[in-house]
Amino acid sequence: MSEISVWFGDLEFEEGKGEFEVVLLEKKEISVLKDRWLSLLNNQKNAGSIQKLSIFPNLVSIAIDAGFVNSSNEYYSLLRDVSIAVSRFQISSSLTDDKKIIQAVETLDDLNETVNHLSERLFEWYGFYYPELAFDEKFVSRVSETPEIAFESKMGAVPDSKDIVLLQSFAKDISNLNSQKSAIEAYIYEKMSSVAPNISEIAGVVLGARLISLSGGLKNLASMPAGSIQVMGAEKAMMKHLRSTAPSPKHGIIFSHPVLNTAPMRLRGKIARTFASSLSLAARTDFYAGKLNPDIEKKLTQKIGQIHKNDAQKQKKTASVKREDI
Amino acid sequence: MSEISVWFGDLEFEEGKGEFEVVLLEKKEISVLKDRWLSLLNNQKNAGSIQKLSIFPNLVSIAIDAGFVNSSNEYYSLLRDVSIAVSRFQISSSLTDDKKIIQAVETLDDLNETVNHLSERLFEWYGFYYPELAFDEKFVSRVSETPEIAFESKMGAVPDSKDIVLLQSFAKDISNLNSQKSAIEAYIYEKMSSVAPNISEIAGVVLGARLISLSGGLKNLASMPAGSIQVMGAEKAMMKHLRSTAPSPKHGIIFSHPVLNTAPMRLRGKIARTFASSLSLAARTDFYAGKLNPDIEKKLTQKIGQIHKNDAQKQKKTASVKREDI
Repeated sequence: MSEISVWFGDLEFEEGKGEFEVVLLEKKEISVLKDRWLSLLNNQKNAGSIQKLSIFPNLVSIAIDAGFVNSSNEYYSLLRDVSIAVSRFQISSSLTDDKKIIQAVETLDDLNETVNHLSERLFEWYGFYYPELAFDEKFVSRVSETPEIAFESKMGAVPDSKDIVLLQSFAKDISNLNSQKSAIEAYIYEKMSSVAPNISEIAGVVLGARLISLSGGLKNLASMPAGSIQVMGAEKAMMKHLRSTAPSPKHGIIFSHPVLNTAPMRLRGKIARTFASSLSLAARTDFYAGKLNPDIEKKLTQKIGQIHKNDAQKQKKTASVKREDI
Repeated sequence: MSEISVWFGDLEFEEGKGEFEVVLLEKKEISVLKDRWLSLLNNQKNAGSIQKLSIFPNLVSIAIDAGFVNSSNEYYSLLRDVSIAVSRFQISSSLTDDKKIIQAVETLDDLNETVNHLSERLFEWYGFYYPELAFDEKFVSRVSETPEIAFESKMGAVPDSKDIVLLQSFAKDISNLNSQKSAIEAYIYEKMSSVAPNISEIAGVVLGARLISLSGGLKNLASMPAGSIQVMGAEKAMMKHLRSTAPSPKHGIIFSHPVLNTAPMRLRGKIARTFASSLSLAARTDFYAGKLNPDIEKKLTQKIGQIHKNDAQKQKKTASVKREDI
């Protein structure tokens, strides 16, 4: 007696006999059949026992004989529905939250570029009517909210109402894109705190999301050596270093973090190494444990404090040596 | 007796005497003073008579003595206001409608690029949840109007409500940009029919606006030889032709017109030449006369009809020759 499992039940058979005993599933529901299918996929040992059979059983007639379906039409239609349900489940489970983060970060970058570009265009056009206006952060919202400001200009051309209506609605569109940016940032924030609490704690949400995006996913980031994380985003400088005598890059996109960009030049290499190794630990913790471990951040702060302390002592020593020189 | 004109009136003086008779303007209003200033600017002959004077008159004290102003403070404050009014008038008059068209066309191009880019991004993201959805013209509006369609998918991941809210508002922003495109097109349409009725008649509004934009203004377009209009937008191919043995380009952006892009290859060079010379005539008529001259379009249609007719006869002849060959 051997047994093989198929999507609608188990077949028991005796070698050489060519006859089957069928044990059907209890319920003929798509969700039940889908789960069975998935468990069969995870449990590939059946494939072996099927290959041992001399003749492959005719599953359609077995299903009809056992009363599982009434016709081959019903068999194939049910098979189709179940296999679609299986695909959809697989697609859903492959769409992990880090994939969503990647998509959101890329969209955020697109929107940043778009908003900057269109704001410049609006500024140029609006400048016909109000050349005194400064191009700052609030420029777009000022135009979209108070179109009359063009009429207050002392230097610009006198606008007609149509010009102003057009420019105002253009400014409103740009404002909407700005709000969309905030909505996407909030989305990233939420996903990051559930998927990558440790990375978020160390790097901040946006930089953390960018690191996940650049590496292609949390799993990839978790398996990267700290040195790669350190120079991620500086691939061009890295290639130049490998090709020529240019110095190796000290940091990639992690430079956007204040811990690096506010540090004195001479300490940046050291801090970047320390920071990247904490990031690497944070990524592994996020991927394998999935919970916030506050120790990582605590230790990082300690180490960076130590780097600054050592540096201060060294600077003092150098200064006193210089004084003795005089 | 000579006379010199200044911004607040006329000064009559006798050579050698050093005394002035002052005739003030009737009204001390900024708009009146501005107009006088502009007429003085257009009428530079006064500059000559001032240079003839041995001592330049002290205009401030003359204005006070004549009762035009009460103090030097009032004199300079009025002078400042009038000169600002003059500048603003000059800026307004330099902002001709063709400059507005250029700005609008460039913005339209920006928006086209933006809308395409963001739509692709939305399509990629939305595809997580609805991979079956086709990327066509109505894709964005379908997503922005009926977000539930993602739940109808049989293949995509199952979205949660937050995903859908975000994607829907993103789609709405893109739809708004699309409406903005239409508004700008309407603006271009209106300006073109008043500024360039002949170009619009021959080339259509958008192509016409692009020609004005590429040439830098209606005046430039009107002064261009027809051959330059013919290849405008094909500068790269033109440079290649001048540099090497590549053939000269037959047409630039004018190719987007149906008269060219629906014509058989063998006629395109001829038609492009004819079309461009009508465009050049239309540009000159728009710039110098400013009124629609329906004859230009009529003659163009005639000439192009003739080109097609001649070609048909030639083709017939060739065909009959071929038949005789057999």
